[in-house]
Amino acid sequence: MRITVLAGGIGAARFLRGLLAHSPDAEVTVIGNTGDDLTLYGLRVSPDLDTVMYTLGGGNDDARGWGRADESWNALEEIRAYDSVPSWFGLGDRDIGTHLVRTAMLAEGRTLSEATAALTARWRLPVRLIPMTDDRVETHVVVEDPDSPEGRRRMHFQEYWVRHHASLPVVTVDVEGVRDAAPAPGVLEAIAGADLLLLPPSNPVVSVGPILSVPGVREAVRSAPAPVVGLSPIVGGAPVRGMADKLLPAIGVDTSAAGVALHLGARADGGLLDGWLVDERDAESVGRIREAGITARAVPLMMTDVAATAAMAAVALELAEEVRR
Amino acid sequence: MRITVLAGGIGAARFLRGLLAHSPDAEVTVIGNTGDDLTLYGLRVSPDLDTVMYTLGGGNDDARGWGRADESWNALEEIRAYDSVPSWFGLGDRDIGTHLVRTAMLAEGRTLSEATAALTARWRLPVRLIPMTDDRVETHVVVEDPDSPEGRRRMHFQEYWVRHHASLPVVTVDVEGVRDAAPAPGVLEAIAGADLLLLPPSNPVVSVGPILSVPGVREAVRSAPAPVVGLSPIVGGAPVRGMADKLLPAIGVDTSAAGVALHLGARADGGLLDGWLVDERDAESVGRIREAGITARAVPLMMTDVAATAAMAAVALELAEEVRR
Repeated sequence: MRITVLAGGIGAARFLRGLLAHSPDAEVTVIGNTGDDLTLYGLRVSPDLDTVMYTLGGGNDDARGWGRADESWNALEEIRAYDSVPSWFGLGDRDIGTHLVRTAMLAEGRTLSEATAALTARWRLPVRLIPMTDDRVETHVVVEDPDSPEGRRRMHFQEYWVRHHASLPVVTVDVEGVRDAAPAPGVLEAIAGADLLLLPPSNPVVSVGPILSVPGVREAVRSAPAPVVGLSPIVGGAPVRGMADKLLPAIGVDTSAAGVALHLGARADGGLLDGWLVDERDAESVGRIREAGITARAVPLMMTDVAATAAMAAVALELAEEVRR
Repeated sequence: MRITVLAGGIGAARFLRGLLAHSPDAEVTVIGNTGDDLTLYGLRVSPDLDTVMYTLGGGNDDARGWGRADESWNALEEIRAYDSVPSWFGLGDRDIGTHLVRTAMLAEGRTLSEATAALTARWRLPVRLIPMTDDRVETHVVVEDPDSPEGRRRMHFQEYWVRHHASLPVVTVDVEGVRDAAPAPGVLEAIAGADLLLLPPSNPVVSVGPILSVPGVREAVRSAPAPVVGLSPIVGGAPVRGMADKLLPAIGVDTSAAGVALHLGARADGGLLDGWLVDERDAESVGRIREAGITARAVPLMMTDVAATAAMAAVALELAEEVRR
């Protein structure tokens, strides 16, 4: 079975590990969000691609959730000792090795797809990981800032997320450059040729949102022959992890399992979803989601370990079969 | 006393440590060679500036001669594991921290002088270290290469030196970009305002040579009111360390203490030197150097430890007084 997954970072990577545990023989293509990509000290960093790569390649620090296992932090310690440039981003030494290879390949004129293929080759990934686009796209957040002349300030999503811990009031989220971006090679084909399209429990605003906003991608999902099944990243009115509750209001979406489902919309109704899994705690919302034309089911959605996550993947596949019939 | 030193990397850094041990109250300005600077994986690296900075700041690995003490090599290990880009340059994790700060500051539009000032501030250097120029200048080596269509190949000096261990036959050495470069702020002033100008035992082709080739610098040294005293980097017909013997023939200079002195030339004769120290083993060349109009003396020139190096500095200062009278 060919499964295509639209993936953010940590949540998606964990879900993929469960999916592969459940369906080790599936041909999985992961379309990775690159809206989080940023240039730090000249290094081109792709946080979501790397989190998926490290996690599925066995190089991730699972306790931390991101970055490399057996990591050292000497370069960052030095950057801080110089006290001349910002140092809020967690750049480990091994992780820097990845960024240096990517930066060097991009400087040579290779595409992000080519750099990603070279990087993932080393990790012998059980999936094909491709970026959503080879064009430079960056998710920016506009926040309220009474100290600035305009009363607001624009910053990279990572700066908002990591440096400010999502503590600033968000006015809007803007995926800068995405209107002029093209899907990377293989993206539209992976959507059109899939037997199943999955939306893992990733942040709908800054993980799945940027992927869908690449011109052609949303339409490709809408018109794909395969069923589209998603898993709610919101459980009991709050994000399972991360801070999606800070961003959903900025795009006018209710922070609830049903709110995200209705935001993505029913395929029958011009939206994206055939099926949607919510957590048991949100069972009461199943009726409302079904009324909107989306097949829904309430099951445990906490990715506490690989077995629990594999069980979630199993239900997502069941729901897809139900939709398909 | 205001002493200005034209400095390369390891040899100059060791000499400076001896000079400061002998003359702790001297106001020393170090004009550093930036011809060795290169861009690696997007990082802007200044090997000579960093060697002087680390050595005088107490952060150098003295056994290795270059790079940071207590260094780790995790980023480089990862780069090698990816096997997608060259990895011949010794980039330690702590050292990478320095390069990241420099690269970030240059990307912000700061000059190399400003970046160097910010970096050296952290190390509380006992000297003022300034780059020879803020313009991008790179020492390239043209080597014989029977496999290339032109029969020769051009490469960065560091690639020739570190990657190929100076094993390729050199046709010419070219300081690319230097004709259009300007001395960095303070360079000409430090030369004109010095009480003594010193040329440490640095490579005359790729360390001192590039500094002198920055437009205005050679003339400033020639017309400086202070005496100019140098120390031979060649002892007994071979470089004390490094591989200057591979490069001197390429610029038509005899690999000997006298050869380098005559190449730099007597100030009285339109050259650069008032005084020149040779090693005891080269005592027989003193007469020939004096005949050329350069005051010369033969003393031990091996920088085996700080005390031996301080003694060398003491003799250089004596020679300067002798010249001054």
